[in-house]
Amino acid sequence: MKVDGRHIRSIWLEPDGHTVSAIDQRRLPHQFVVAQLTGCADAADAIRSMLVRGAPLIGATAAYGVALAMRADSSDAALDRAYSMLIATRPTAINLKWALEEMRSMLRPLSSPDRAAAAYSRAAEIAEDDVAINRGIGQHGLALIEKIAATKKPGERVNVLTHCNAGWLATVDWGTATAPIYLAHDRGQAIHVWVDETRPRNQGASLTAWELGHHGVAHTVIPDNTGGHLMQHRMVDLVIVGTDRVTASGDVCNKIGTYLKALAAHDNGVPFYVALPSPTIDFSVDDGIAEIPIEQRAAEEVATMTGRTADGRIETVRIVPDNSPVANYGFDVTPARLVTGLITERGVLKADRAALSAAFPERIAAAAE
Amino acid sequence: MKVDGRHIRSIWLEPDGHTVSAIDQRRLPHQFVVAQLTGCADAADAIRSMLVRGAPLIGATAAYGVALAMRADSSDAALDRAYSMLIATRPTAINLKWALEEMRSMLRPLSSPDRAAAAYSRAAEIAEDDVAINRGIGQHGLALIEKIAATKKPGERVNVLTHCNAGWLATVDWGTATAPIYLAHDRGQAIHVWVDETRPRNQGASLTAWELGHHGVAHTVIPDNTGGHLMQHRMVDLVIVGTDRVTASGDVCNKIGTYLKALAAHDNGVPFYVALPSPTIDFSVDDGIAEIPIEQRAAEEVATMTGRTADGRIETVRIVPDNSPVANYGFDVTPARLVTGLITERGVLKADRAALSAAFPERIAAAAE
Repeated sequence: MKVDGRHIRSIWLEPDGHTVSAIDQRRLPHQFVVAQLTGCADAADAIRSMLVRGAPLIGATAAYGVALAMRADSSDAALDRAYSMLIATRPTAINLKWALEEMRSMLRPLSSPDRAAAAYSRAAEIAEDDVAINRGIGQHGLALIEKIAATKKPGERVNVLTHCNAGWLATVDWGTATAPIYLAHDRGQAIHVWVDETRPRNQGASLTAWELGHHGVAHTVIPDNTGGHLMQHRMVDLVIVGTDRVTASGDVCNKIGTYLKALAAHDNGVPFYVALPSPTIDFSVDDGIAEIPIEQRAAEEVATMTGRTADGRIETVRIVPDNSPVANYGFDVTPARLVTGLITERGVLKADRAALSAAFPERIAAAAE
Repeated sequence: MKVDGRHIRSIWLEPDGHTVSAIDQRRLPHQFVVAQLTGCADAADAIRSMLVRGAPLIGATAAYGVALAMRADSSDAALDRAYSMLIATRPTAINLKWALEEMRSMLRPLSSPDRAAAAYSRAAEIAEDDVAINRGIGQHGLALIEKIAATKKPGERVNVLTHCNAGWLATVDWGTATAPIYLAHDRGQAIHVWVDETRPRNQGASLTAWELGHHGVAHTVIPDNTGGHLMQHRMVDLVIVGTDRVTASGDVCNKIGTYLKALAAHDNGVPFYVALPSPTIDFSVDDGIAEIPIEQRAAEEVATMTGRTADGRIETVRIVPDNSPVANYGFDVTPARLVTGLITERGVLKADRAALSAAFPERIAAAAE
């Protein structure tokens, strides 16, 4: 997508053929800084410090991390070291594990001199695959937006509400929840996005708003408390969010607060869609609320807020009384009954076991093994 | 309620018999500062600048403002000037208008020399009436808490979730939503409060957490996104919130985000109560969603956050990209169908026209005139 009028991705290979560049997402929205990753340790640091975040982008960064490692030392020992260093950065990230196992199993049989080139090539493929999947999600989601647009008066905007950042910054390009939005915008569809700020980490206010703004998509940042009121007053046509994990029965685990928006959408007859690449479906889990453990994160994320002062300094301020305890649950689970549809690269599916099984027979077969 | 072990109210008359003191709520939770109001202009400034806030406290402050004015000059002209100065501070505050009309109509027939003493006396009554009403709300709400406590194992806490600040800081003492909580706590009931931080103005994190903490009530500050997850996991026994206006049919207008919590409570079978002094019921309005205009507030409240830096400075930081528009709706409406009961000083009422009419026949008669 675009930044300052120029097409850019969240991660890319520099023309020198080996340096990997990535946007430092910790500095957004106030500073646009590109970090250069020249070794495996840089890639590991980038993931650990959340310079990059978002499951698909973490996977691509880890793949490039292995490539950077192979360029320096393509021995078996170096491959194992790279795997160990990178896997330890975000232990619960599914795409990270998948990308590293993919890289290791592909590289292991190769002779040492061939590994660096093969690693760069496979890392590039992993990145391109992500772009293609998201574009597929975008096209299926676009049809939903166009159907709503057809019911509007000429010039009337389609209003989408989204939560957190399932945008191109979380992937290599396009994003998941945002892919239909960018496609619609690029085709000239009048579209406007309500962006939940997404406390406590504010990924909506700091990342989604930033990327929509740079690409030229009309949007408005709102407190997380606002969506219900907007839906009551017909100011939202559809909701599209991303997800960290979808169960075999269609329950959706996503950023804390997603469930509340799904309830409001249901109560007001607003379609509630979840956009996801199909590997996000976990056929080993059925009841999301009962079975998915919800990570608790650092109290500081709730107790403090970081931003830019009027004179341009980045400061962190405490907003909770010193002695007040804080709880910080990272995710919640939206029951399948509240989900209008799952927008995948294979089409828009009903959020239930039958539809998921029919669309992914090979996954069901694999899970049964 | 208590601050640093000492009983205190949000506003009080000093022993000199004329100076009025109030907690400067703009400085909470980081600084506890008491402001002294020695003239009508001080009272007007206090209301306008939100040194004091909360409908009942605004009413009491305005009443004392008239008393301060009468002390300096008890002429008819001074009374009119005081009325005009005070009414202009927060034009939409219903209690403000009520308190000022009450003071003016009571003082007007009196001879000038009698007015100051009468004004102080009536202002004190208005404050005491608020305390008595809230204590009444507390006692009716206490019965609800005790009923839940009776279903718990010994030592298990009753978990209440609240939104915004309907605490003693918003009133003269006790608060509305918090009155049952303080009464239960004072009687030795094990109780714990989930405090929604309440973006964008953070009244939960900065005021409710502060007052609960100082009184010794166990509590945990959570992002507004969290309540649904907690309710899904049976970590909330009941919700109690305040309200700015209840319609004749029981719809509840309250701080933005209240509706989302009501939906989650309903979806999980958690009782959802609204605590209010009965003047908050507006028998002239029926359908809250269709009829109540929702105030839009300054973008800065969403785009920035104020807090305390690690080295103790109070700073305001921007958290939204410079060019991203922001929307800031102040309130939402929770339909009566989602409200388990209205806790008033006359008892816990069903949120419907029949129950409200039966409990307040004199209001129905007045509305029909």
